[in-house]
Amino acid sequence: MKRAIGTVYLVGAGPGDPRLLTLRGAELLQRADVVVHDRLVADALLDLAPPRATRVDVGKAPGEVPVSQDEISALLVEHARGGSDVVRLKGGDPFVFGRGGEEALACARAGVPVEVVPGVTSAVAAPGVAGIPLTHRGVASTVAFVTASVATGPADLSRVATAADTLVVLMAMRRLGDVCAALVAAGRSPGEPAALISSATTFEQHRVVATLGSLADDAEAAGVEPPATLVVGAVVNLAATIVPSAERTPAPEVVDPGYGTLHLV
Amino acid sequence: MKRAIGTVYLVGAGPGDPRLLTLRGAELLQRADVVVHDRLVADALLDLAPPRATRVDVGKAPGEVPVSQDEISALLVEHARGGSDVVRLKGGDPFVFGRGGEEALACARAGVPVEVVPGVTSAVAAPGVAGIPLTHRGVASTVAFVTASVATGPADLSRVATAADTLVVLMAMRRLGDVCAALVAAGRSPGEPAALISSATTFEQHRVVATLGSLADDAEAAGVEPPATLVVGAVVNLAATIVPSAERTPAPEVVDPGYGTLHLV
Repeated sequence: MKRAIGTVYLVGAGPGDPRLLTLRGAELLQRADVVVHDRLVADALLDLAPPRATRVDVGKAPGEVPVSQDEISALLVEHARGGSDVVRLKGGDPFVFGRGGEEALACARAGVPVEVVPGVTSAVAAPGVAGIPLTHRGVASTVAFVTASVATGPADLSRVATAADTLVVLMAMRRLGDVCAALVAAGRSPGEPAALISSATTFEQHRVVATLGSLADDAEAAGVEPPATLVVGAVVNLAATIVPSAERTPAPEVVDPGYGTLHLV
Repeated sequence: MKRAIGTVYLVGAGPGDPRLLTLRGAELLQRADVVVHDRLVADALLDLAPPRATRVDVGKAPGEVPVSQDEISALLVEHARGGSDVVRLKGGDPFVFGRGGEEALACARAGVPVEVVPGVTSAVAAPGVAGIPLTHRGVASTVAFVTASVATGPADLSRVATAADTLVVLMAMRRLGDVCAALVAAGRSPGEPAALISSATTFEQHRVVATLGSLADDAEAAGVEPPATLVVGAVVNLAATIVPSAERTPAPEVVDPGYGTLHLV
């Protein structure tokens, strides 16, 4: 018997490699009635949902008219009120630069039950698979995250620039030259180690290691494409010794619907 | 035929709930020869490894003589050189306050292949399941992480105290009163919203929401036990509306060795 009202599960899809979804996320996808997902979520994850499940892509490709945040929230509430269990599948973690808070609030205010299923954020995973620990004994004991999105002003960048040993800037490709210049203007040394990791944990993963002063030029020369994560700090030096794991174990294109078996390509 | 040398997988076990392990982590555990794990890792995860696998607990209970970091690194190298594939299962993410960098360096220097498998860090998950987004449009666009461990001095706390909208302090129980006082001394308001989440994502999860000035007393009155994560910032106000998910869906005590089926208690 169908319940009168469904639950909205805000599920972090992880940074790219579908195998970095959590077991809990996979379990919920497998019994979802509706999956509302971002554009960058792997097809292998969408395939975990039952064939009968409704799939709604609310991501926007460059140039397309985006589905507004209010429309997404309304969609979640509407489906749950119709009795469906809804998985809202978001890149990374739903509560780290994911606007999941707005969706959770909308559901809560509408009396729709919400469960938050944390995910692996690319702020942690992108440096990690590139061989860069965010903290390291004697090198870095504090970390800060910010994005280079339009919504984040230069004031945010300046304020966090020197506050933590390791600084991670998400969505860094869009204005990489400006971001690096702003960090130097705010007091970080142009000679400081900096790395850019694009398409982290996927087949297309690419790592550029340089200094804050030279990274933008080096990334352009290397033809790096978004999405990309910028890491600044002495921990970047460790990448010379710790070899990126993703260069050895590419992500699969298919995750078995039973998620007991993973087909490696 | 056994390879001459094994691989060391630095796997993030997630914040507590075994279902927050990644699919990749589960896959690697299922074919591990050796599992070297922290004390706080769930039994359900250790049970994913084959019965024949060697399990080594390198965690330290309070009062016990700890296995040193150098000994742990030596153990990983030794087993891999003996031809074993080793899963080094670490709480949270291996590269966020996990000393995984030291283990990765030791392996790399010894010529042992290392793969980093990022995990869900409690710095993100503890606030998340307590209904606290780390970022929120118009409320918080920057985040900083620090620990209250002995190794981290008051200087670290002071430096990051006001740098980001949202501040997360891991291992916060040990010196909670001192930490809150240090943050106020460094410029955060005693009236600012603050929350403490203990044993996040487990059956024992407990959330105390207060202000920076009153939290230490409130937590003591509530009898909060470590491990606990402190969150400071206006995002904590959202917790009044977003109900903690873990209060609805307790973690299982058993994860099926096939990890295709999860037995909920």
